[in-house]
Amino acid sequence: MLSRPRKIGVFDSGVGGLTVYKELLELLPDESFLYLGDTARVPYGIRSPETICKYSLQNCLFLLEKGAELIVVACNTATASALPYLQSELKVPVLGVIEPGVRTALATTRSKRVGVIATETTIRSGVYAEALKARDANLVCVSQATSLFVPLVEEGVMSEAILFPIFDHYLKIFARENVDTLILGCTHYPILKPHLQCYLGDGIALVDSARATAETVKDYLAGFSEKKPILVKETPLLFVTDAPERISRIAEKILGGRRLRIEKIEV
Amino acid sequence: MLSRPRKIGVFDSGVGGLTVYKELLELLPDESFLYLGDTARVPYGIRSPETICKYSLQNCLFLLEKGAELIVVACNTATASALPYLQSELKVPVLGVIEPGVRTALATTRSKRVGVIATETTIRSGVYAEALKARDANLVCVSQATSLFVPLVEEGVMSEAILFPIFDHYLKIFARENVDTLILGCTHYPILKPHLQCYLGDGIALVDSARATAETVKDYLAGFSEKKPILVKETPLLFVTDAPERISRIAEKILGGRRLRIEKIEV
Repeated sequence: MLSRPRKIGVFDSGVGGLTVYKELLELLPDESFLYLGDTARVPYGIRSPETICKYSLQNCLFLLEKGAELIVVACNTATASALPYLQSELKVPVLGVIEPGVRTALATTRSKRVGVIATETTIRSGVYAEALKARDANLVCVSQATSLFVPLVEEGVMSEAILFPIFDHYLKIFARENVDTLILGCTHYPILKPHLQCYLGDGIALVDSARATAETVKDYLAGFSEKKPILVKETPLLFVTDAPERISRIAEKILGGRRLRIEKIEV
Repeated sequence: MLSRPRKIGVFDSGVGGLTVYKELLELLPDESFLYLGDTARVPYGIRSPETICKYSLQNCLFLLEKGAELIVVACNTATASALPYLQSELKVPVLGVIEPGVRTALATTRSKRVGVIATETTIRSGVYAEALKARDANLVCVSQATSLFVPLVEEGVMSEAILFPIFDHYLKIFARENVDTLILGCTHYPILKPHLQCYLGDGIALVDSARATAETVKDYLAGFSEKKPILVKETPLLFVTDAPERISRIAEKILGGRRLRIEKIEV
């Protein structure tokens, strides 16, 4: 039987997973976390599934070596392409971001017409459409790759003069298809959430998988009868594979001024 | 003394260097070329100089192993961060894309006020400003990182409803600063050239370093008294480190329907 994980390792291709990390820190303030942003190889969304499996496994092995006993794949692309592979290769539990978002969407939709926006690789994998339909065969899933959203977030562009024409380009399909719920299927996207909500109006509920994932981790930990071990509380540690200054700037924005230690490593 | 290179190796972080490759194929139709797009590790523009040096050297060693006897670094970021390093590490000549663009800009400007747009890493390196000022100390160089341009090109977005608000965001400085010449300091940017020219108007001349680089390679080869060796003419070969289907689509657009062989490799 598995014992209660003492350290939780979180990884993403870059800074997007920090939205998950933020929710984890808020919802589970007493847990110990390690975060790895694979910034030397970001973005994953344009890479092949084989490459994503290889990179994801390397990231997990690094986190295990640093003491992680539970892994959260805080990246939709990596979850879509590599989750079953990671679960078969690793001895520790591995949780992804897709199932939590799917569950929340199913609990939210009234019309049974659900939209998904994500990177090209995630959309091509069909994983959201499959997961939704596996639970409700009558559900209609409308998918759209929104490849410019990650660079927009990474660049910190939040002007609606720029965002809205890009939203026109990608999002018109959701009004046309009458979806009432839209899954933000990439961990970068919660940062665009207020602008998306403003553009789409109140008729479409946005599902933020970062929050849903943190809740799933909390539920998972609650399943152990063992108490949380008492560890020395440390400043959250962020490992990155490249360009630590750049990450430091973005992390500060996402995590809202929280103190962080950032360390550059090789995987 | 070096003998005349028989095969020319060209590399870029991804598909951007294909604009240089296209000009090389047009200007030097009898030469033999090898192209490597490091699509597993694109984009270079957000990585650190050390990482770019490491990746660039690996790319060159691959091309040398395949028979290249002259290397063209068809990427501004890699030229800015790694050219002197590659020249010191390798026995074959290595040409970059920055000097050719700088020479053309100096020959073009009347007002001695020159603009440069490029990736964040290239702009931060200061290499364009230095190279321009080294040749003319009175010249004013206005630099601007335009980080969204590479994703726009990679995504194939060419709608002016999307492009022009982004151009507003980045390019207003050039009219304000009265530049008469603008260097497109990234090999992806020639694909945006007609839209940039339309937005900026005829008062600003655009310098396309892809063409300038191909001309520099031609001049270099013309310096050898040996004749061009007769080799069997082959369909141009493109090596990529990931996602060959994606590249195939974009390469067809840039190279205008030319026949290509694409092969996925590891470096």
